[in-house]
Amino acid sequence: MAAEIVNPRSDASSGTEGADEPFDPAFALHRGGKMAVQATVPVRDKDDLSLAYTPGVAKVCSAIAERPELVHDYTWKPNVVAVVTDGTAVLGLGDIGPEASLPVMEGKAILFKQFGGVDAVPLALATTDVDEIVDTVVRLAPSFGGVNLEDISAPRCFEIERRLQEKLDIPVFHDDQHGTAVVTLAALKNAARLSGRELGELRGVISGAGAAGAAIAKFLLEAGLGDVAVADRKGVLSRDREDLTPVKRELAEITNKAGIAGTLEDALAGADLFIGVSGGTVPEPAVASMAPGAFVFAMANPNPEVHPDIAHKYASVVATGRSDYPNQINNVLAFPGIFAGALQVRASRITEGMKIAAADALAAVVGDDLSAGYVIPSPFDERVAPAVTAAVAAAARAEGVARR
Amino acid sequence: MAAEIVNPRSDASSGTEGADEPFDPAFALHRGGKMAVQATVPVRDKDDLSLAYTPGVAKVCSAIAERPELVHDYTWKPNVVAVVTDGTAVLGLGDIGPEASLPVMEGKAILFKQFGGVDAVPLALATTDVDEIVDTVVRLAPSFGGVNLEDISAPRCFEIERRLQEKLDIPVFHDDQHGTAVVTLAALKNAARLSGRELGELRGVISGAGAAGAAIAKFLLEAGLGDVAVADRKGVLSRDREDLTPVKRELAEITNKAGIAGTLEDALAGADLFIGVSGGTVPEPAVASMAPGAFVFAMANPNPEVHPDIAHKYASVVATGRSDYPNQINNVLAFPGIFAGALQVRASRITEGMKIAAADALAAVVGDDLSAGYVIPSPFDERVAPAVTAAVAAAARAEGVARR
Repeated sequence: MAAEIVNPRSDASSGTEGADEPFDPAFALHRGGKMAVQATVPVRDKDDLSLAYTPGVAKVCSAIAERPELVHDYTWKPNVVAVVTDGTAVLGLGDIGPEASLPVMEGKAILFKQFGGVDAVPLALATTDVDEIVDTVVRLAPSFGGVNLEDISAPRCFEIERRLQEKLDIPVFHDDQHGTAVVTLAALKNAARLSGRELGELRGVISGAGAAGAAIAKFLLEAGLGDVAVADRKGVLSRDREDLTPVKRELAEITNKAGIAGTLEDALAGADLFIGVSGGTVPEPAVASMAPGAFVFAMANPNPEVHPDIAHKYASVVATGRSDYPNQINNVLAFPGIFAGALQVRASRITEGMKIAAADALAAVVGDDLSAGYVIPSPFDERVAPAVTAAVAAAARAEGVARR
Repeated sequence: MAAEIVNPRSDASSGTEGADEPFDPAFALHRGGKMAVQATVPVRDKDDLSLAYTPGVAKVCSAIAERPELVHDYTWKPNVVAVVTDGTAVLGLGDIGPEASLPVMEGKAILFKQFGGVDAVPLALATTDVDEIVDTVVRLAPSFGGVNLEDISAPRCFEIERRLQEKLDIPVFHDDQHGTAVVTLAALKNAARLSGRELGELRGVISGAGAAGAAIAKFLLEAGLGDVAVADRKGVLSRDREDLTPVKRELAEITNKAGIAGTLEDALAGADLFIGVSGGTVPEPAVASMAPGAFVFAMANPNPEVHPDIAHKYASVVATGRSDYPNQINNVLAFPGIFAGALQVRASRITEGMKIAAADALAAVVGDDLSAGYVIPSPFDERVAPAVTAAVAAAARAEGVARR
């Protein structure tokens, strides 16, 4: 069914960036949506129909009823991921609701397919209640091989993920947390290798204590980073602060060994690594105060917390979230291969070891071509997804969560 | 990801038809599932990515947040149907659970695509609780243009459909009820035309008071059938019976004007029409007792309630649910076009008038080729879906439920 062509300019209300823009290529591309379902078996005649549908399908249903594991052989379940959101933390747009989040979820779904060969279905839910989201996803689980949580605001995203991981025996992965953390670690490992340093020697500062910031902090520490301080809008998280949510309090317990109290700028003095996942701008003097040869990963989109031109004046390695600068920290480097690997071996969950393996595989793609302008591969490097997939599948087997 | 090849024979437990069968073509066809997701826009390079995903997608999200109706122009929502089941009444297999129902739901999804151009997603739920099913589907609704309920057992299916229709402003359609009723009415109208009779002159008998039987009875009466008696396993539903569920009691109020008390066989004496949606077998003498020139629609699969060879001895028109006999009453003649038509005009629901229009359009495809062996078109007749789609869309406009 062809969608009627609507010119977003013709009757757009004011105040919406883009909707006022005539002939915007993003609107043209999105017309009619970005995805479709296709049959992978023929349905040309009654013989086809009698196999794919009644009466032939009944034998397959009966076999699965008898031996539930056969659902992995005779349905698309083992290769399909639910991309679940409530529309509360969409890109930099915030709480825009489920319908308005759909273009992002469709985008995610086609990236799953394009880069990982994984089928994915966008499910934007009409509830922001933690219990309701958990219940809904648990009820949907029989139809899916995995669950990718997306753009759900903190701190609800932490509880939703934890409870779903407890209740389900399929991978549940909040990409805004862990996908970002995996790609960041890969870039960091290569930056450290380039400069001949160990992660344990380095002290980092993260601007942003939301889903991404919290996950990156925990993951880098698990991977061996010496120390990291996390700053929210009110300053560095520390045990002394009395205004912290439970999640931030927990983060304060494991981060900031240096005991820094004060602002983000205070923490940056002498730091080896800046990671921006917050938006906002870091003043140039604070960047200048970092240790010599520092790494600056300013990942806010479209405006990095430190402009690359400024960062290069002081840092040895600069990465951003943008595709028009070198070293793009882009989740698409991780999530397609992580799910493809987990699904390939029917992993019951995605462990820390599997995420570390993904980061190592991603870093290894760079290989001997490593340079300050190339610490992380391009999203379009065709070696990436197979390498991550294989590493994650192997790690799942090694960690005992693989079921085939 | 290619599914590992499993020979169902190799380690099948006994008692499962098919799973014991070597090289069964139904198993071979189902290996790896029957459907996939595909991108409909290119994601070849960073320019593509910047339109389909960040940063370009943000403009589209913002526009939808500002003007919610744009979700119909810039996402796949308006063309995607959730195929929702709880696995409690799957084909003739009964309550086999959500996973085992998935091959049927995938089959339904590819029929939606093949015959109606409608995208569909199988959602087999891990709950059989009415409240939970309703809540779950309501939460999923932002992502879908319509909901096709499938293989949910009676009487829960009636309440689930009613409550969802009240809560949602998108079409909610229980195909086991209404799809079957639409195709049955189309066949009946052509059978009546062939024999020069009006529906108002005819008295029918339906074997089966479940979802299909109840819906067919109501729908044929709305369409003008003179009278119909519905029999469950204990006999004809009548106001005198004290063992009826609320749904059957309601049915007894509007059916059986003739006031028949007794068995299915009692009701068949002198009847003009038999409709079988129950399984079981009708004894030949009961068929012989029907009125001269009767119509026998014995739709149970794979074993019709009246074998066509027997039926032809007494009836003027014989239809079954099987593809290897003439006049197959097959839901696929209706549901793809009904949803395609409803989605095309963004109908808020599927009205009785839209279903009647679908039946009339389906009957009209037969046209001047009408004969006793051809009262209903083949599912593979390419005229069917466009005719039903156009008729349903026009009816939606006429009934004031179209939104474009």
